[in-house]
Amino acid sequence: MNDANLTLHTDKYQINMMYAHWKRGSMNEKAVFEAYFRKLPFGNGFAVFAGLERIVAYIRSLAFNDEEIEYLRMQEEKYDEDFLLELRKFKFTGNLFAMREGTLVFPNEPLVRVEARVFEAQLIETAMLNFMNYQTLIATKAARIKQVATNERLLEFGTRRAQEADAAVWGARATYIAGFHATSNMRAGMLFGIPSSGTHAHSWVQGHDSEEEAFKEYAEALPDHVTLLVDTYDTLRSGVPNAIKIAKELEQRGKRLKGIRLDSGDLAYLSKRARSMLDEAGFTDALIVASNDLDEDIIAELKAQGARIDVWGVGTQLITAFDQPSLGGVYKLVAREKNGILEPVIKISGNPEKISNPGVKEVYRVVNRQTGMAVADYMCLPEEEEEIRKGQPIKLSDPLHPHRSILVENYEAIALLQPIFDKGELVYELPKLDEARSFHQDQLGHFWPEHLRKLNPEMYRVYFSRSILELKTELLNKYQG
Amino acid sequence: MNDANLTLHTDKYQINMMYAHWKRGSMNEKAVFEAYFRKLPFGNGFAVFAGLERIVAYIRSLAFNDEEIEYLRMQEEKYDEDFLLELRKFKFTGNLFAMREGTLVFPNEPLVRVEARVFEAQLIETAMLNFMNYQTLIATKAARIKQVATNERLLEFGTRRAQEADAAVWGARATYIAGFHATSNMRAGMLFGIPSSGTHAHSWVQGHDSEEEAFKEYAEALPDHVTLLVDTYDTLRSGVPNAIKIAKELEQRGKRLKGIRLDSGDLAYLSKRARSMLDEAGFTDALIVASNDLDEDIIAELKAQGARIDVWGVGTQLITAFDQPSLGGVYKLVAREKNGILEPVIKISGNPEKISNPGVKEVYRVVNRQTGMAVADYMCLPEEEEEIRKGQPIKLSDPLHPHRSILVENYEAIALLQPIFDKGELVYELPKLDEARSFHQDQLGHFWPEHLRKLNPEMYRVYFSRSILELKTELLNKYQG
Repeated sequence: MNDANLTLHTDKYQINMMYAHWKRGSMNEKAVFEAYFRKLPFGNGFAVFAGLERIVAYIRSLAFNDEEIEYLRMQEEKYDEDFLLELRKFKFTGNLFAMREGTLVFPNEPLVRVEARVFEAQLIETAMLNFMNYQTLIATKAARIKQVATNERLLEFGTRRAQEADAAVWGARATYIAGFHATSNMRAGMLFGIPSSGTHAHSWVQGHDSEEEAFKEYAEALPDHVTLLVDTYDTLRSGVPNAIKIAKELEQRGKRLKGIRLDSGDLAYLSKRARSMLDEAGFTDALIVASNDLDEDIIAELKAQGARIDVWGVGTQLITAFDQPSLGGVYKLVAREKNGILEPVIKISGNPEKISNPGVKEVYRVVNRQTGMAVADYMCLPEEEEEIRKGQPIKLSDPLHPHRSILVENYEAIALLQPIFDKGELVYELPKLDEARSFHQDQLGHFWPEHLRKLNPEMYRVYFSRSILELKTELLNKYQG
Repeated sequence: MNDANLTLHTDKYQINMMYAHWKRGSMNEKAVFEAYFRKLPFGNGFAVFAGLERIVAYIRSLAFNDEEIEYLRMQEEKYDEDFLLELRKFKFTGNLFAMREGTLVFPNEPLVRVEARVFEAQLIETAMLNFMNYQTLIATKAARIKQVATNERLLEFGTRRAQEADAAVWGARATYIAGFHATSNMRAGMLFGIPSSGTHAHSWVQGHDSEEEAFKEYAEALPDHVTLLVDTYDTLRSGVPNAIKIAKELEQRGKRLKGIRLDSGDLAYLSKRARSMLDEAGFTDALIVASNDLDEDIIAELKAQGARIDVWGVGTQLITAFDQPSLGGVYKLVAREKNGILEPVIKISGNPEKISNPGVKEVYRVVNRQTGMAVADYMCLPEEEEEIRKGQPIKLSDPLHPHRSILVENYEAIALLQPIFDKGELVYELPKLDEARSFHQDQLGHFWPEHLRKLNPEMYRVYFSRSILELKTELLNKYQG
């Protein structure tokens, strides 16, 4: 798929820490890291996890080959030759747990958990975050757009504005998981089996003596796929009337005009006028596609104004997550091996929200058995799992707002973290992309619309178990006492 | 470097237009496209062109191989088999002109001009814009940061927050052109020869029983490269005092502490206090590195408050161009072959700023011979070049503000567009990255500081020749008349 060796797609400090671990003989000590984000992007009520397939491929392909070793040898750090020999043997031998792609996810819950030799766990941090952060961000942005355009067709059109080539293709994939229908990027189509979509550009029209001739020639070449871009000269006085002429010609050949595309001007007004013109001419089935710097707010506004748009082509705002182009996910050590035993650890910070949550955590989605709806997510330590797996009544309380505690009964607790690698072996069957997409759609059905709306959503709650909170207090006292 | 085949890294409409051109027999007609942006990003006074090396590699590697052809064969458009055969023969045979990487560039001037068979010119639009838009954006963002931190060392730390892998490495390269000194990304270092930089993370400290022990072990492993992260528990009460202890131990071994890194808290206050503590202990040469969501505004503010920071590590804000994550560059047809002659064309739009500027344009930088400073950029048609090359007095006037016209004499006119491909042959020797970086630095010296400041810069002027303006009026009248 992508033959580049990404083994050195990591920060130099990872290599330096690996070196220091190797030197002091601690490289094989086990460490547990969790990857999570602290704050939902875009003021949204949820995020959509994506990036796992990329992470899996990356981990499986890790290899320090000649080029990598040679580069490391040149560094001013002058790493020991024996360290470089050790790297040549490098292989991921740890355990990795992750959410399924398409899962609705929330702040502070581990999306990926890595249990491995510290030597391995450090190396993979950077690339893993890079993939998880971007793809989760774009899937979330796409889900917001999907929320306001549930019945229309959604096309991802962003490649030329994406942040380089990988962003275009992996971003397109993330939008598909979140419910987009197609992408304009042919390579994304080829790599992931996403339907691809597109007709012609302004240059096609400019390249002819008249718009009508341009339309005619296009219809001649691809008579079954004629969507005409009508705004090169004048949408209502030239573009739409010419498109109708072509539609009539196509009709005589037993073909139908598929649609028109509006790419500038007032899309509410133009779409309503174009719709009437097409309808009056008998082309009620011709679709109206709109593009031009769209996002979820503009789409919602246009719909509120009665715009008659059947297909939305979304580019820049989606593929760059323009209003918040980074998720800010982090990867924190939560436990480390000491004298053969895993001990929880904490990271303290001057910024309270940056204090990490210690301990190896499991994440459960607590679903009400009567309604089938998600009540809250619950994180606990392994020793607390039995209680929740058995469905025993649990009291969930918010440490900052104790009056908010709820008692939950008659629930099913669904474990969200799946085993992906077990002692370095891939034990997870990656779902097909369409399965991830359906899984995501299915997930949405288990959340109240109040959590899903784009503006001021009701915050879905994520609770830590009492043991985790006690552990945190204990460790805070230990290091700050 | 990256073995992925990017030939289908294009929008489907390009393929459909290529197909339609092939069908109607116009695929070999010549077309001229210009790539440019309409508005400077970040309210900056200039942009920094980057992305050419990537574009050159892309164009040279274009090839429809089995996988690409097979994918196209599966499309619902059911392309003719003969078209697919034609694609197998595809090769770029046109001319391409571009700015040098590192050039200061301005709105509406062509950064890249493609003169090729329309069949080729369409295919490459999407990827070319993708590369040019992102790398130019990031080089520009980096240049803004460089403007406020001219004397400090600048490190690019953004990989984990970059928009996927390509953005991380090509972004790192763009920041280096604009004057950054190093990147944390090892692969970017390996691919492009950028110095790489990094020491240790919080997890290193958390992975030990005490901060002091963690520092000691790190200094043991890499005694010549000890920059200690001092904010894991408490910067001033624990981190800096422990770093000073290590510095003393290093001293006894004839080594020096390289520095400390601050990654949270109030960087102005902490850096001043840490500086005094280090100085009092005799470590006046220990550098203070700062990171934590920095950008040009925060750096300028911290400096205004007297922060004592020697090295800035900049991540998310830089690598995503957080405040404006897309450049918005476009690629417009400016002339096309008709009956064997190139004819200028225009694209009209309801949004006046989106009306294209017709004709094949050359771009000159007009430099005052006495001051050596750039006066303005000037675009003209080929037939007007002689006048400006000879240095004849020219009157530059702004069509919207005629009172602003200036008469320029005693100038040198430097052609900004370089021939890159000539009839498909690469005729340009790609400069080494350090040469592009020096070239950029040199360029800055020819611009008044008023154009370079980050807030409310004086706008550097870009003029169209009279002939271009007349041509535009003529074509507007023709299509709207």
